[in-house]
Amino acid sequence: MNPTIGVFDSGFGGLTVLRALMAQIPQARFVFLGDTARLPYGSKSRRTIARYAAESAQFLVEKQGAQFLVIACNTASALALDAIQAAVPVPVLGVIEPGATAARAASKTGDVLVIATDATVHSHAYTAACQAQGLRAIEKACPLLVPLVEEGWTDHPVTAEVIRIYLAELLAEASAQGMTPDTLVLGCTHYPMLRPLLERAVPPGMRVIDSAKAAANTMVLTLRESLGTPPASLPEPPLLQCFATDSIEKFERLGSRFLGQSVGPVQLVDLGG
Amino acid sequence: MNPTIGVFDSGFGGLTVLRALMAQIPQARFVFLGDTARLPYGSKSRRTIARYAAESAQFLVEKQGAQFLVIACNTASALALDAIQAAVPVPVLGVIEPGATAARAASKTGDVLVIATDATVHSHAYTAACQAQGLRAIEKACPLLVPLVEEGWTDHPVTAEVIRIYLAELLAEASAQGMTPDTLVLGCTHYPMLRPLLERAVPPGMRVIDSAKAAANTMVLTLRESLGTPPASLPEPPLLQCFATDSIEKFERLGSRFLGQSVGPVQLVDLGG
Repeated sequence: MNPTIGVFDSGFGGLTVLRALMAQIPQARFVFLGDTARLPYGSKSRRTIARYAAESAQFLVEKQGAQFLVIACNTASALALDAIQAAVPVPVLGVIEPGATAARAASKTGDVLVIATDATVHSHAYTAACQAQGLRAIEKACPLLVPLVEEGWTDHPVTAEVIRIYLAELLAEASAQGMTPDTLVLGCTHYPMLRPLLERAVPPGMRVIDSAKAAANTMVLTLRESLGTPPASLPEPPLLQCFATDSIEKFERLGSRFLGQSVGPVQLVDLGG
Repeated sequence: MNPTIGVFDSGFGGLTVLRALMAQIPQARFVFLGDTARLPYGSKSRRTIARYAAESAQFLVEKQGAQFLVIACNTASALALDAIQAAVPVPVLGVIEPGATAARAASKTGDVLVIATDATVHSHAYTAACQAQGLRAIEKACPLLVPLVEEGWTDHPVTAEVIRIYLAELLAEASAQGMTPDTLVLGCTHYPMLRPLLERAVPPGMRVIDSAKAAANTMVLTLRESLGTPPASLPEPPLLQCFATDSIEKFERLGSRFLGQSVGPVQLVDLGG
């Protein structure tokens, strides 16, 4: 049986999560939806985000036959996971729990740093998820990093300087609170594109945790329970169809950088609104 | 008679236009709408932008009694001015025509540079408006400048460096096309917040044209024809009510920087979608 896995994001940053999933679950068929007509979710209210995310999830499950759903968007995971789980009858996985679980496994001091968008930080979802794992977390919004990634400046001195400034502020605040952080969680699906710069910028010995990879690992465990292990050799590359609610051209142009391979022809869908 | 002037933007950048209008038309009542639930328009299709902008214009005219409308948003002016003019029965002014007219007055060589968002540049609306004025224009998208302004880095070395890079690329391209530009048009309502940095970054003698101020000047001329000159002394500060479709808190927090005074209590409105 080839399971169909739906992956949802407000934009195309979630393609970094899809990339990790495709590498680990090669026998699946993937359907990805970027709700690009209504992005960014990060500047919108919880009520609005919950409605948009539920409609998007229903599209993937009801129209595209997704049997599992990954919310590859930190903002939607932080603010709307309950609403999505209520809206569809299939297992739904967000990126925040797996990120916190991976931080738990990585951290020796129990103190972790989280960088994310404004809306994710304001929700304090990572702080709550980390606390549930017995960790202390301190969060910082880094609103310039997404536009820098989308400008293609993923290995640029300006981006390195912005990262240096953000991390210095975050480390100073952690120190002021008496924390000794040894782990940095990337709480936004765009940030894995900056991983080399971030690795160079963190203090020596600090671990960098990618929520995208963590979510993929969790989904693999979930699927193994449902489906058993995949066959040893698979003749075909994983099947993928991408959908977007607007801006197909930008999705196709930038998306391939996030996915690490062509996103193929992206299909436009109208979810209303 | 105190005219009611409606001012519309997808976000709150248009408050720089409102600021210029309030300084020049103190006898008016102003109603401002930021369609913050559906921003940024810049990444959306023309059809979607036209629908959002028309709904927003109808709110200002039909519900708030606006007798004149200023589209304080370069993207909506570039892609939806016709649709807005068709949707409401009052005079509608965009920011692009006035910007091109001001560039005509400023330029001696007839060659101008335009910096703007992605969507505005892709529309080539400034190139067309400049050509209609007998100017040659070359446009460049500067997608990092809006987030830098919203981060509050309006006088920051990183922003200065980003501006230096963007202008160097734009000047090199102009030179390659045999142009001798002497005027820079700010084709985004956020950019007036960067005017001091931009003034320092342009080559000696280059004029910087602010579309916001140019639109305000044009509206003053329009109003003088309709209303006559204002009384010499006015006892009250101009009346203002701001509306937003989402994210009231961010609007109130950042908006006052753009307006140069408090935006007052911002009222939430639901335009659907």
